[in-house]
Amino acid sequence: MAAGEDIAAGNRQWLLARRPLGMVSESDFELVERPVPEIGPGEVLARVRWLSFEPAMRGWMDERESYVAPVEVGAPMRAPGLAEVVASNDPDYVAGDVVFGMMGWSEYVTGRWSAETAGRGYRRVPAGMPAEMLLGPLGSTGMTAYVGLLDVGRPEPGDTVVVSGAAGATGSVAAQIARIKGCRVVGIAGGAEKCRWLLTEARLDAAIDYKNEDLGSRLRRTCPDGVDVYFENVGGAALEAVLDNLAFGARIALCGLISGYNDAEARPGPRNLFQLIVRRASIQGLLLWDFLDRLPEASVDLRRWVEAGEIAYRVDTQEGFEKIPRTFLRLFSGANEGKQLLRL
Amino acid sequence: MAAGEDIAAGNRQWLLARRPLGMVSESDFELVERPVPEIGPGEVLARVRWLSFEPAMRGWMDERESYVAPVEVGAPMRAPGLAEVVASNDPDYVAGDVVFGMMGWSEYVTGRWSAETAGRGYRRVPAGMPAEMLLGPLGSTGMTAYVGLLDVGRPEPGDTVVVSGAAGATGSVAAQIARIKGCRVVGIAGGAEKCRWLLTEARLDAAIDYKNEDLGSRLRRTCPDGVDVYFENVGGAALEAVLDNLAFGARIALCGLISGYNDAEARPGPRNLFQLIVRRASIQGLLLWDFLDRLPEASVDLRRWVEAGEIAYRVDTQEGFEKIPRTFLRLFSGANEGKQLLRL
Repeated sequence: MAAGEDIAAGNRQWLLARRPLGMVSESDFELVERPVPEIGPGEVLARVRWLSFEPAMRGWMDERESYVAPVEVGAPMRAPGLAEVVASNDPDYVAGDVVFGMMGWSEYVTGRWSAETAGRGYRRVPAGMPAEMLLGPLGSTGMTAYVGLLDVGRPEPGDTVVVSGAAGATGSVAAQIARIKGCRVVGIAGGAEKCRWLLTEARLDAAIDYKNEDLGSRLRRTCPDGVDVYFENVGGAALEAVLDNLAFGARIALCGLISGYNDAEARPGPRNLFQLIVRRASIQGLLLWDFLDRLPEASVDLRRWVEAGEIAYRVDTQEGFEKIPRTFLRLFSGANEGKQLLRL
Repeated sequence: MAAGEDIAAGNRQWLLARRPLGMVSESDFELVERPVPEIGPGEVLARVRWLSFEPAMRGWMDERESYVAPVEVGAPMRAPGLAEVVASNDPDYVAGDVVFGMMGWSEYVTGRWSAETAGRGYRRVPAGMPAEMLLGPLGSTGMTAYVGLLDVGRPEPGDTVVVSGAAGATGSVAAQIARIKGCRVVGIAGGAEKCRWLLTEARLDAAIDYKNEDLGSRLRRTCPDGVDVYFENVGGAALEAVLDNLAFGARIALCGLISGYNDAEARPGPRNLFQLIVRRASIQGLLLWDFLDRLPEASVDLRRWVEAGEIAYRVDTQEGFEKIPRTFLRLFSGANEGKQLLRL
């Protein structure tokens, strides 16, 4: 075993202390310190350097069935991130390797990576790729935006595309890909500052501040011919308002429903699903995992667009292990400006 | 002009007297008698022999935007049906011709049919085709079932298919096509008698009586591997229950939402649209008009299946012009057993 000198004795972890009922709070997590595990044959030990946060993680805290197993009460929370190998008994990894994949809210992660690749899916960070880009527009959120907009939304040039959560990590990429593809793009976001960013930096055609404007009338005015593609991150009132303004044959790419993730009891859905018949429109739920064959092309396109300045992005980087729960909570108050990351 | 001797002096009509708020009632219609119109050059006069009723007609009574213009207050209600030409100044039609298409709640209809074909779409009744078959499983409801199930639902042999309103005109055809295509079919209907018909005559694999059984637990038990295709006529609790029991990649063909058609205020939608993400499922609204190129094949298939006894159907035939509104109302109390028709 080739343990590095800089391995601490203690491995701090944030555990899921209880399943939140309603809005998640810091007290739903518990900070513990455990010994850094000794690694056995074939195992790797890595120090977590970056964590990435997304609203869907709120769902992992609930007991209810979802697209991944819930985090067990008493187990460390999961989060995608980036870690540096500090000790390895696996010939495929050496100290100093930087990998990304699903980490924990933990200072160290360990495992039998070569044997577990299918489950863990750790991959080496490409040379010269900043963490902010890899976990931001080129990460799973950016990729989700890519396949959700292009493969599910299927916009044509000239289409009117509406994106909710448009200033967020996924929404901002989806909206700008639509712009790049020659669509008219209307972003929905909360607050004047986010809307200003959508117009000046993301260069959308219109931005609607749902906190300070009437969503329905603004949608009618900004989308006089109806909404051809709706990239949905939010749900609730936004979904209902867009359903009332669909163009014929509209496609709704259902990426997330963040407005409901912290509800203790599930809220009713839109009252106007009949509009799907009137407009012969569809709603399709999506998850990145189903589009693995699209990722190579998505990576190339996204990197090119980001480097050419065609996709603007913002990263909200917090610092410090202690701040993990607080950083996660920023997603639900709308405090984050762009992709929410934390550097350890 | 070659007027037939049997033309009455008066043309009775049921007008839309007012827009119903909530459940439609007989008092929303008004019976009037007007002179049978004299026909001018190029015009045809026909006596309505059969009328057909469907739940969607309730929507035509509302002001709100839908897939057809609302019936104006003071105008005769519309309904598809079958009429016999009694006088014609149009060389394409002679007295005795029997045509089908969109009629009114009226004893006579008139028009410049050759010039108006695009709008009216009257077609001659094929020789030897009983009205009950033409307005039933071979009519627009049967055709809607065909394209909705096959083109939108896209079932594969072995799939589990659930149909709501399964004993109704559209649902019963959709469910039996699914059975013919090698699917396991579960029908949802209201009442033991309808469920008995689904099992013995329509030969479905299971029937759920939503009025007397717990829909959620029955769905779980009858669809242990989840619902691959859901043909939706009803909405409300049925949609929510099926959303909780979707198979991966499920398709929901949204044909109707009858449970809400008589609501004075639109009811909330399903609380669990997130299941569309969990199951990567879709909801697609449909209307027959978008599948006109499929109708020839649909006609041939449906006729063959009906004549071979592979599609059982029931027609609920009421009699008499006075009974038109009452007959229409049967659709919303569930009193009709199969396709609701009226013979004049």
